[in-house]
Amino acid sequence: MSAQILSQHAIRQIDIIKVQNGNNHLVTDDVAVEEPLEIQLVFHDGTSKQRKSISVTMRTPGNDLELAAGFLFTEGIIANSESLSTGHGEHNSNLSNIVTIELAKGITPKLMNSERNFYTTSSCGVCGKSSIDSIKTASPFNDIMREMIHVQRELICSLPAVLRAHQHHFSSTGGIHASGLFNSKGRFIALREDVGRHNALDKLIGLALFKNWLPLNDHILLLSGRASFELVQKASMAGIRIIAAIGAPSSLAVDMAKDADITLLGFLRDDRFNIYHLGAQTIIE
Amino acid sequence: MSAQILSQHAIRQIDIIKVQNGNNHLVTDDVAVEEPLEIQLVFHDGTSKQRKSISVTMRTPGNDLELAAGFLFTEGIIANSESLSTGHGEHNSNLSNIVTIELAKGITPKLMNSERNFYTTSSCGVCGKSSIDSIKTASPFNDIMREMIHVQRELICSLPAVLRAHQHHFSSTGGIHASGLFNSKGRFIALREDVGRHNALDKLIGLALFKNWLPLNDHILLLSGRASFELVQKASMAGIRIIAAIGAPSSLAVDMAKDADITLLGFLRDDRFNIYHLGAQTIIE
Repeated sequence: MSAQILSQHAIRQIDIIKVQNGNNHLVTDDVAVEEPLEIQLVFHDGTSKQRKSISVTMRTPGNDLELAAGFLFTEGIIANSESLSTGHGEHNSNLSNIVTIELAKGITPKLMNSERNFYTTSSCGVCGKSSIDSIKTASPFNDIMREMIHVQRELICSLPAVLRAHQHHFSSTGGIHASGLFNSKGRFIALREDVGRHNALDKLIGLALFKNWLPLNDHILLLSGRASFELVQKASMAGIRIIAAIGAPSSLAVDMAKDADITLLGFLRDDRFNIYHLGAQTIIE
Repeated sequence: MSAQILSQHAIRQIDIIKVQNGNNHLVTDDVAVEEPLEIQLVFHDGTSKQRKSISVTMRTPGNDLELAAGFLFTEGIIANSESLSTGHGEHNSNLSNIVTIELAKGITPKLMNSERNFYTTSSCGVCGKSSIDSIKTASPFNDIMREMIHVQRELICSLPAVLRAHQHHFSSTGGIHASGLFNSKGRFIALREDVGRHNALDKLIGLALFKNWLPLNDHILLLSGRASFELVQKASMAGIRIIAAIGAPSSLAVDMAKDADITLLGFLRDDRFNIYHLGAQTIIE
């Protein structure tokens, strides 16, 4: 048995507002840390030393060398542990979100495998940066005039039951995520489902694009599961100002919501929810 | 309001064995369909017509044009619906897992954005194929001699409680996936947690690689959530022959398990689980 070393970097404490039965409480809560990790491979191709960026993944810091080695192995890029040089990598999680894996002398990576499996991503250079600015895409709706949105607590708590009633595929399979769109009066507008949570949201925003509904700045987005950075980023692009998730948000989702001033609610239940960020233009009453 | 058109392609009916209180029942059950979709972009760069593969995503079929348009918009590759040509795309979900989006005359895609956001993936050509063979990576342990594994029903049902007891980060954040490794006698070996389920498994397999535990052909892999194609593929690479998931499997996860002859259990609870595939070398007694 081998202990995890997620340690202090896996969890971040933040101040949130717990809303329950009409009361607000300011409390400190834990969120799971989500940060990009770039996996770089160093090897000798016979004539010179090569350094190649293999993948960027949004991960929880900790055990990063294991993550990189496991990724390289499960994607078929390395064949076994002898492919790794002794010492097999360098990484300082306090300083960088880049992990470098060095291959043993004479070993070349099977990079065609990773291309065939379409997990190869382009190098982006974000992982050496600490700022959320470096990974976000600017929304075209950042500068439009916006009015205040008033939303009632009871209305927010009523949304999950409406989503479930429209989630035809979840009930039979138990395995599909949903993104639901409501107006600020709580009227159900549309829902999309997918095994991938980001796909469900892309489908919903694609629908809004085709229907000329954008920007969705007077709407509430309801997520059936957890809220990741990627989902908040996508919602921001569509001009959404209120996101309610039935699951937990990640640290980077909270950062992104604060940065874009999007109201982010989590752990939404029939009688309660947590406020991770309250946008300046949102009033919950 | 606009209806989803996931329809018959979103769900597949399969025969499974329900194990409850020591009894086995053969029943027909629904699983969510998971299939790759390749998004291709067609545009005129001023001198000639270009066709570019933008992304491959594992998705549930249905509303694929919305998915493609939403992806292009939320990644900042197109600015609005006027960027799309009238008719804006072609797709026949019965024939192909490729969706083509054509841009309007004079519009060029902002592909730098997607590269900066590291969601660009290389073209792989798998989406025009129907076979699982085209997307799987061969395990180095396919041909090793294997003995039968005997596992007791009660032992399997006891695993989730052990996993939860070791899942330190989930209890405080509610937002972290876990991959747990047990031997066939039910002894806990190791656990890794991450906001990304594939990262948790890569960390666990990376640990096994460093410890020279591979192949894990006498072990049980326990997944805290759902089982996707990608997770079964990764487990297969490590030689794992029994996967138990607390959540639901996707259609492609079941296909992959059958193809690699890995025992795949889902909806694991204290008193029951479903058998989606029983490997020829596994005996559940």
